Amino acid sequence: MSKVTLKDISKILGISTSTVSKALKNYSDINVETKLKVQELAKKLNFTPNAFAQSLRSRETKIIGILVPELVHHFFSNVIDGAIHEAEKHGYLVIVLQTHECYEDEIKQLKLLVDKNIDGILLSLSDKTVKYDHIKNIIDEGMPVVLFDKITHLIDCPKVIINDRKAAFSATEHLIKTGCKKIAHITGPLKPKTTIDRFMGYKIALETYNMPFDKSLIYTSENLFFEDGYRLAGQMMAEHPDIDGVFAFIDLVAIGVLKGLREQKIKVPKQVAVIGFSNWLMSKTTTPSLTTIDQPGYDMGKQAFQLLLKNLNQKREGKVFTSEIVEIPTRVVVRKSTNAIIDNS
Amino acid sequence: MSKVTLKDISKILGISTSTVSKALKNYSDINVETKLKVQELAKKLNFTPNAFAQSLRSRETKIIGILVPELVHHFFSNVIDGAIHEAEKHGYLVIVLQTHECYEDEIKQLKLLVDKNIDGILLSLSDKTVKYDHIKNIIDEGMPVVLFDKITHLIDCPKVIINDRKAAFSATEHLIKTGCKKIAHITGPLKPKTTIDRFMGYKIALETYNMPFDKSLIYTSENLFFEDGYRLAGQMMAEHPDIDGVFAFIDLVAIGVLKGLREQKIKVPKQVAVIGFSNWLMSKTTTPSLTTIDQPGYDMGKQAFQLLLKNLNQKREGKVFTSEIVEIPTRVVVRKSTNAIIDNS
Repeated sequence: MSKVTLKDISKILGISTSTVSKALKNYSDINVETKLKVQELAKKLNFTPNAFAQSLRSRETKIIGILVPELVHHFFSNVIDGAIHEAEKHGYLVIVLQTHECYEDEIKQLKLLVDKNIDGILLSLSDKTVKYDHIKNIIDEGMPVVLFDKITHLIDCPKVIINDRKAAFSATEHLIKTGCKKIAHITGPLKPKTTIDRFMGYKIALETYNMPFDKSLIYTSENLFFEDGYRLAGQMMAEHPDIDGVFAFIDLVAIGVLKGLREQKIKVPKQVAVIGFSNWLMSKTTTPSLTTIDQPGYDMGKQAFQLLLKNLNQKREGKVFTSEIVEIPTRVVVRKSTNAIIDNS
Repeated sequence: MSKVTLKDISKILGISTSTVSKALKNYSDINVETKLKVQELAKKLNFTPNAFAQSLRSRETKIIGILVPELVHHFFSNVIDGAIHEAEKHGYLVIVLQTHECYEDEIKQLKLLVDKNIDGILLSLSDKTVKYDHIKNIIDEGMPVVLFDKITHLIDCPKVIINDRKAAFSATEHLIKTGCKKIAHITGPLKPKTTIDRFMGYKIALETYNMPFDKSLIYTSENLFFEDGYRLAGQMMAEHPDIDGVFAFIDLVAIGVLKGLREQKIKVPKQVAVIGFSNWLMSKTTTPSLTTIDQPGYDMGKQAFQLLLKNLNQKREGKVFTSEIVEIPTRVVVRKSTNAIIDNS
């Protein structure tokens, strides 16, 4: 017979692997009856926790892992910077890995980290990840995991997020308050929750200010490249010459729009105002400089490590992991690509 | 008596710690007489290699460290990307640390890495590092170290570099061949070898093409910021209204120059041509897009790991580390901020 796993016990008893895991560790939030049932069955089946879980209990490596979609990326490199800095303060070193937005790579990289007996993992999901068992399983086996930025509420663990919907609302509201009457939105590939939330924030802002929502004003940048924005600026102005505002879901695309508009001799912000999202370094170097949403990556990395540290302490004390959600505030950074706010008072 | 160290033995015998270390490991490039002398003294003094060195010999962690001045930096994040990718292919994970250009932090971070029993280190020196004992010592104790980009020839180990002098020569030559007669150079803080080499490349190009070198055409950006370039564009044109070319030692500063020139209504490249260095992502988003030197970070990280791997293999086989130097080729990326090359044929 092959090695008995948590899953086998969970199937036989008809309870979750997470409950099985907690019952075996004698966690206080599992009722006594369940604990006894699980522990008896485990004994009967000769269940032994795997080497990874054992070593985790026996010693700490003081090394954690951080897994991001891309490292060469202004936002994510800031998150890593914040995480490394905070980790170092507490005596932890950080292994960095990338998924390149690939689901299979995410699975593989997580396994690499787990095999190295690291103490915990900070994770931002790849855009292609739609199943979460590979993450749930390692949490069930006792590994502290904190999700940040690209998250799912289907995994029960601590999370650090920004409110993309609220931030996108502010961006669109800024365009409305500075006099824009016909605002286009450039969105990204459909999957990531962040992209959908930014689109929703745009839509809700229009509704809130009684402005019509027009589907033909939604453009899609498939590759998140500068060139996409450049090309779409041409297409937008050809299809809707009276557009007077553009909210692009990411700075790099907004900067492409700026360049496309300039080549069409369209004045920014006088004729068309443009707002981006993320506050990349380059957004202050363009002419005109780009109004954008500040997405504080450094702070996100710092808070993510702090949540992980909480879970590490809880683990040490044999307590159940708490799963709080920290929301990092964002703000509109007003630069020269949008007009001054119209004072209606 | 306190614990006997490699240094004690080296002092007593009047030979380098590196020779002592190699003699104790029975390396073939140390002559037999020296080996005997060292080994006898070690025995007499009851010398035990420290825990770190012992564990290094006994097992590999398959984790390496990379230490860079800054992580939120287009070039260095590309180097890390290349190193992580190549390391992963060979089953190694990578701990990332930053010095923030601080000598004390470099010492501290290297110690953290060594204490974690990692297998090897990729290192780009901080600008403030002028003494190298902290690095020489860990190499002497048997840790494979590869230097990249910001290096010193005073440390005997493998290195990956670009030829900054040659690259800067090409940049200046490009301005000359496109018709510039009076070329300013923006340089950085005096210390880093890379900065000095870029200045030298500029100077040699002028000499080669029989153009006068004028000290008053050298400007300094202390902070390597966009704002420096912006400010210097004003100062340069006020002091030398007939400047027709600018070579900035880094893209971010060149992009500041572009913005400064535009605000003075100076046409780029018609009146003043501008070339940068490094080929940051943002250099293609500016108007006009920036001609620059491509400094292939990804490739540098990849090659640095490959050299480390060679040392790791040599170590496993009890061989002496080789110290080869790999030079990564650079090239001029011609965009819109410089004129077309004048055909004199």
